[in-house]
Amino acid sequence: MIRVTVWNEFIHEREQEAIRAVHPQGLHEEIAAFLRTNEDMTVRTATLQDPEYGLSQEVLDRTDVLLWWGHMGHHLVPDEVAQRVRDRVLAGMGFIPLHSAHYSKPLKLLLGTTCSLTWRDNDFERVWCINPAHPIAQGVPPYFELPHEEMYGEWFDVPEPDEVVFVGWFRGGEVFRSGCCWQRGTGRIFYFQPGHEEYASYQNPHVQRILTNAVRWAAPRYCRRTLGCLYRGAGCDVPQEIEPY
Amino acid sequence: MIRVTVWNEFIHEREQEAIRAVHPQGLHEEIAAFLRTNEDMTVRTATLQDPEYGLSQEVLDRTDVLLWWGHMGHHLVPDEVAQRVRDRVLAGMGFIPLHSAHYSKPLKLLLGTTCSLTWRDNDFERVWCINPAHPIAQGVPPYFELPHEEMYGEWFDVPEPDEVVFVGWFRGGEVFRSGCCWQRGTGRIFYFQPGHEEYASYQNPHVQRILTNAVRWAAPRYCRRTLGCLYRGAGCDVPQEIEPY
Amino acid sequence: MIRVTVWNEFIHEREQEAIRAVHPQGLHEEIAAFLRTNEDMTVRTATLQDPEYGLSQEVLDRTDVLLWWGHMGHHLVPDEVAQRVRDRVLAGMGFIPLHSAHYSKPLKLLLGTTCSLTWRDNDFERVWCINPAHPIAQGVPPYFELPHEEMYGEWFDVPEPDEVVFVGWFRGGEVFRSGCCWQRGTGRIFYFQPGHEEYASYQNPHVQRILTNAVRWAAPRYCRRTLGCLYRGAGCDVPQEIEPY
Amino acid sequence: MIRVTVWNEFIHEREQEAIRAVHPQGLHEEIAAFLRTNEDMTVRTATLQDPEYGLSQEVLDRTDVLLWWGHMGHHLVPDEVAQRVRDRVLAGMGFIPLHSAHYSKPLKLLLGTTCSLTWRDNDFERVWCINPAHPIAQGVPPYFELPHEEMYGEWFDVPEPDEVVFVGWFRGGEVFRSGCCWQRGTGRIFYFQPGHEEYASYQNPHVQRILTNAVRWAAPRYCRRTLGCLYRGAGCDVPQEIEPY
Repeated sequence: MIRVTVWNEFIHEREQEAIRAVHPQGLHEEIAAFLRTNEDMTVRTATLQDPEYGLSQEVLDRTDVLLWWGHMGHHLVPDEVAQRVRDRVLAGMGFIPLHSAHYSKPLKLLLGTTCSLTWRDNDFERVWCINPAHPIAQGVPPYFELPHEEMYGEWFDVPEPDEVVFVGWFRGGEVFRSGCCWQRGTGRIFYFQPGHEEYASYQNPHVQRILTNAVRWAAPRYCRRTLGCLYRGAGCDVPQEIEPY
Repeated sequence: MIRVTVWNEFIHEREQEAIRAVHPQGLHEEIAAFLRTNEDMTVRTATLQDPEYGLSQEVLDRTDVLLWWGHMGHHLVPDEVAQRVRDRVLAGMGFIPLHSAHYSKPLKLLLGTTCSLTWRDNDFERVWCINPAHPIAQGVPPYFELPHEEMYGEWFDVPEPDEVVFVGWFRGGEVFRSGCCWQRGTGRIFYFQPGHEEYASYQNPHVQRILTNAVRWAAPRYCRRTLGCLYRGAGCDVPQEIEPY
Repeated sequence: MIRVTVWNEFIHEREQEAIRAVHPQGLHEEIAAFLRTNEDMTVRTATLQDPEYGLSQEVLDRTDVLLWWGHMGHHLVPDEVAQRVRDRVLAGMGFIPLHSAHYSKPLKLLLGTTCSLTWRDNDFERVWCINPAHPIAQGVPPYFELPHEEMYGEWFDVPEPDEVVFVGWFRGGEVFRSGCCWQRGTGRIFYFQPGHEEYASYQNPHVQRILTNAVRWAAPRYCRRTLGCLYRGAGCDVPQEIEPY
Repeated sequence: MIRVTVWNEFIHEREQEAIRAVHPQGLHEEIAAFLRTNEDMTVRTATLQDPEYGLSQEVLDRTDVLLWWGHMGHHLVPDEVAQRVRDRVLAGMGFIPLHSAHYSKPLKLLLGTTCSLTWRDNDFERVWCINPAHPIAQGVPPYFELPHEEMYGEWFDVPEPDEVVFVGWFRGGEVFRSGCCWQRGTGRIFYFQPGHEEYASYQNPHVQRILTNAVRWAAPRYCRRTLGCLYRGAGCDVPQEIEPY
């Protein structure tokens, strides 16, 4: 059973009626709903308005994979909370930052770069799969279309991904590495570009399939107890004797 | 259920009594035996002495993951048979070349380089895990020891692996990328260095764990029918319309 | 001084008047012409019609970087000649296959995959740089446009490149990894997608800049004599004692 | 002309007579001395004791490649100074952290992981080259020996390097990725493990050759003015119009 937490800053939907109309339950509940249809996942939600910003150590300790939607409120997440998330990822938690979360504090801490990009609102996107054998692409067609998405374009200032699974094509003339994988510490990260608050991309069945696959891909397969993890500061209590031969 | 075929040239064990003493059933049966203890695998064996060198199209078509042990008989595998194996890997079959199979024809076709290395018989090896979160490293300690192994050393002339999971340390002073992952086409390849015919490395529990993990990692997770695979010449019969938007 | 050879199958320009009108001197001379403006390069041309298909051992031995344009005549290059090119790349020669040369025999031997892709004639392309710090991108703007190019689209069945420098956007709705780097053996490979025979892409200043940069990037910086190369079969005559410590 | 700054915390040499005996001018001057023999480099030194910790904006602005030796004083570098170094690397400055600088603040900010490793003082090391064609390996033999070095061992918790050039073998039974390359933003990073303060590794001609090569490799080849850099906040004053086609 994969313990999933969908975190959302939950600002647009509360403050802007037009956005609330698109996501009446909030983006977190919208995403959690389709993930909950999978029998191998237990899905909770958390928001910036919750105690400890929804990201207490207790929440993180019972989370295997964390999805993160943030945009206006990046600065409202305290540095020490972002650091806590980062530490949990390094210790094995899967992390799936969505759309504007390219600028979220935990992702920037994990990747080390500015994560800047170019953007323009409201374009038509085709999402192309450039690695059809990747676990995250399972069941996804060669490409699919999103009639309305925010254009995110290159140059995307991130470390060369371990794997690029999707590349976005925008009618206005741009391209973007829309689905990127990295491992940091023992945790897996999948950044996925679609998901602007004004549109309904999370209702697209291919997007739902991709995020479902991504949760399974990012789930820690790492048994700290049997592996004898060398990870420092991650709460591993297995003796780690390494002796000269 | 993962359909596994363990292929062995099966020459040393038949021709050299000392080798037969170490592997009375042959290396293929020795490897098949521990894989068969896994409930998610169906394991067959095949050898160079079988019809069509044990590698008929029919055998390959019902194989999800192929393990390959070869040494003296690389040249006895016809080019067209090696090509058939290569094509099946590109179409999604997992491929796990073992030890001297760094020089096997299918691997050289798939990697494109000479796959040369340095070597010296009979050394003591420590196998280090340098990516403890990798699926193939699950349950494997930070390092383990093989009291007798053939030294394989750098420079190993292979394309930069997608992931290096294990690095070998040899008492004589050498290092080697002992566990290397590549994807080619839609197939996954894991080369693993231990397994010299004179020694009993495949009886080591960590080696057994690694190969068991590798079979699961290399199994095709790729549903050609749902994915709408673009793969040319691989027998995909799903219509593949790609239209200008 | 970098010794460059521009090889061209030179069929379209001889057999089709419309193509000859675009490239009156042949694609090889057109490419050689702008490379010759660089003081650090000596540029020769060779074609399929030359003795030994323009690819004798003598020609290869005096070539540091080989550019290759081929399309209709891939099958006219004998396997042993393709192998000779491959061996020279593994031994350090730079190799720059252009456009339809994704299907050239040497590249397929070096990469090991089918190198297949999707295509459609005559589209408008924007070439985006996704790694502005790469040596091959030096002096190239964030993107540039080619009013007429053949669309080459994903999925491009090649090994994950060491570095992707350019991604193509096509008006018809496709994307493509248009500039890809690989190292094989000690040689560097840069595949570049623009350059369809019907159009004048090699007269575009950005394309010229890219290919000029690519020649410098791919030039062997490897002093076999001082490095003490381990490369087998590559004509290295430096003693290579490796002793147990 | 490459503008090099060799930065050293300069604590051991001032406080411990035994260390001063090995490096009478300080590690920074020792490293600067052999770099200064290269006609294409202008080499300055800076230490933690200098104004603004030797790392003022003015120093960084005139530095193309920064070498960094630190151990006891990592915590004495203020966070904002480490951030300043990081920003300059992202904007194109080469960065070469040495030995214990795996734990330096700028490297940890750039890589995002703990950068932890195992260690044991005073061992015998063989440094193996596993990518003989890499620019940093030019002129370096297949391996060389350091009679006394601190053992640094795996698991090294860093992001999978873009390229691993050297792997260390230690008599006590460990291996280590001793020479690792990353690109972050538009800057290049080379971490090199040898260089413990008690020993004379920087007097080894192969180490000197490697660091000389690394300075050239890491030097920014990126012409911000001609490239039309997209880099945000990096002082680029070139207009960056990107228009829908």
